[in-house]
Amino acid sequence: MAADPQTQSTRIVLASRPEGVPSSENFGTEVVDLPEISDGQALLRTVYLSLDPYMRGRMSTAPSYAAHLELGDVIVGGTVGQVVASRHPDLAEGDYVLAGAGWQSHAVVDGAHVRRLDPSAAPLSTALGVLGMPGFTAYSGLLKIGRPQPGETVVVAAATGPVGSAVGQIARLKGARAVGIAGGPQKCQALLEEFGFDAAIDHRDPDFASKLADAVPDGIDVYFENVAGHVADAVLPLLNLYARIPVCGLVAQYNGADLDGRDRLPGFLSQILSKSLTIRGFIQSEFVPEMYEDFLTDATGWVQDGTLRYREDIVDGLENAPEAFAGMLQGKNFGKLLVRVTPER
Amino acid sequence: MAADPQTQSTRIVLASRPEGVPSSENFGTEVVDLPEISDGQALLRTVYLSLDPYMRGRMSTAPSYAAHLELGDVIVGGTVGQVVASRHPDLAEGDYVLAGAGWQSHAVVDGAHVRRLDPSAAPLSTALGVLGMPGFTAYSGLLKIGRPQPGETVVVAAATGPVGSAVGQIARLKGARAVGIAGGPQKCQALLEEFGFDAAIDHRDPDFASKLADAVPDGIDVYFENVAGHVADAVLPLLNLYARIPVCGLVAQYNGADLDGRDRLPGFLSQILSKSLTIRGFIQSEFVPEMYEDFLTDATGWVQDGTLRYREDIVDGLENAPEAFAGMLQGKNFGKLLVRVTPER
Repeated sequence: MAADPQTQSTRIVLASRPEGVPSSENFGTEVVDLPEISDGQALLRTVYLSLDPYMRGRMSTAPSYAAHLELGDVIVGGTVGQVVASRHPDLAEGDYVLAGAGWQSHAVVDGAHVRRLDPSAAPLSTALGVLGMPGFTAYSGLLKIGRPQPGETVVVAAATGPVGSAVGQIARLKGARAVGIAGGPQKCQALLEEFGFDAAIDHRDPDFASKLADAVPDGIDVYFENVAGHVADAVLPLLNLYARIPVCGLVAQYNGADLDGRDRLPGFLSQILSKSLTIRGFIQSEFVPEMYEDFLTDATGWVQDGTLRYREDIVDGLENAPEAFAGMLQGKNFGKLLVRVTPER
Repeated sequence: MAADPQTQSTRIVLASRPEGVPSSENFGTEVVDLPEISDGQALLRTVYLSLDPYMRGRMSTAPSYAAHLELGDVIVGGTVGQVVASRHPDLAEGDYVLAGAGWQSHAVVDGAHVRRLDPSAAPLSTALGVLGMPGFTAYSGLLKIGRPQPGETVVVAAATGPVGSAVGQIARLKGARAVGIAGGPQKCQALLEEFGFDAAIDHRDPDFASKLADAVPDGIDVYFENVAGHVADAVLPLLNLYARIPVCGLVAQYNGADLDGRDRLPGFLSQILSKSLTIRGFIQSEFVPEMYEDFLTDATGWVQDGTLRYREDIVDGLENAPEAFAGMLQGKNFGKLLVRVTPER
């Protein structure tokens, strides 16, 4: 289906609800004519599309913090777009903006719902990663709920991902010890050498639980929960009195993994009680009014001076988004996963 | 085994570790000679012994917030005692004190570890209930972690118990709506008529879950967790966004009840994430430095003016403590369970 980029938009819609990891038949591709824009609107061509675990939740009908997608809906997603045509006074042709245009090559947006980006401050793609929603998820959840103190131990899984890598680095900036969990020796090496974690543990290692225990001789004070599953099982017994667990994602659960028939809830509740634990679910948007300006100031400075490093995994072509998304849910990407829908120019 | 109360003490020790609800063979009775007291000590005769769910935890070797009992140890417990002999300058014969003398008729205590009681301020027994550890558990957990706001809905189970009844009444004093869960129609009636709850639900009712849902039309903002089990299962889906769950006890779990083989942890974590819940385990002692004086002032005033009501279930004779304790774990008592070891005189 070849679309005319001057007059048409290509978009990927939810064709059927996935069970477990999504596959190609769950997605459909449509080519539609670009609509006219009204006053206050702008037409964007998508440059980067962000792929994030929360999208899997939107594809299900299970209760979630956001409305689920209907069949036929364009898949949601954060985007960096370039203005192709504008009827909004603050947006000029050629401007770059942060938008939530979803899995499509073009989109008509309300000018009030986008944020202009300065391409000279940081690479455009960082607005979807370390300086965007994943970075703010790490910053707000760690500092507001985790509250790491100097000398404490912070553990995070999916640690080479855009949230996890920021969690570990910000923990160290606050004087804590950062222990990262990742899948495979290559990712673990990157945690130590690229992101400066104090220790890195491979969760695929048969001795994962005992190696994690060895890496936290003083126990765990903050466990930033973004995966659940067998990683959480290994972390739980190592938590210290008054440990804090910000819960921002449950990737292993989204696909129904790690269920072995035992009821682990009683044990979890016993740990909560016996160690006076704090467990707190959150979505970054809750903390936007209170913390977003501080985040942009802090994190932009840290990125510019090299204190806060990030890694991107960029896939070319919107048509490759479904496969890349499925791979991400299985830990195949390495760094913030983005689709380059069209070149930056 | 008849002891001479002038020279001997009767005590109940842990004879074997219970599985599930303790039975008589888990306990042993000993008669020992009273020791001499040293400078700074006092000899107490026990008047009231408090029976509390946490004691079950101490009888196991499972990890807990406090060291477990060894076989042969006297069972721990809060007591109101009267000074029989004193070598401490602040304690005179005849004084009443709050102590932690455990399941025994007499005890030698360090004078620095007891608190003198004023029998004219409130009945002596309340120092073990509404004006003691259970009352402070309710006060600190509800106000510090639950933070009920006017118009919000607070749900508590074991609601005729010493913690639950205080939770509901203090919630109402703060302008919230209190919904109590208890076992049987008699207890539910007491919740409404004696303790002034807004609604009462019998957890033994086959339609318990739907009746609970009907009783909380605006959802649940605070669930004070002291039982776990099937009550918690029914509460979880009714929680509101940003609901708070202070966790102070898991009575149903202590005896291994309510396990049906499903793994409920993934569903629990999903609820935490999708509703941005706060779960916080606590032991009242954590909040003593910060809140205990305020509690004594507030709660003594509320008891004196009749705003904070309480019910006691008093069993006579130390020899009846094991059976009363086992009954409590099965919900057979009605109100704060105390053993009157000797009369007040």
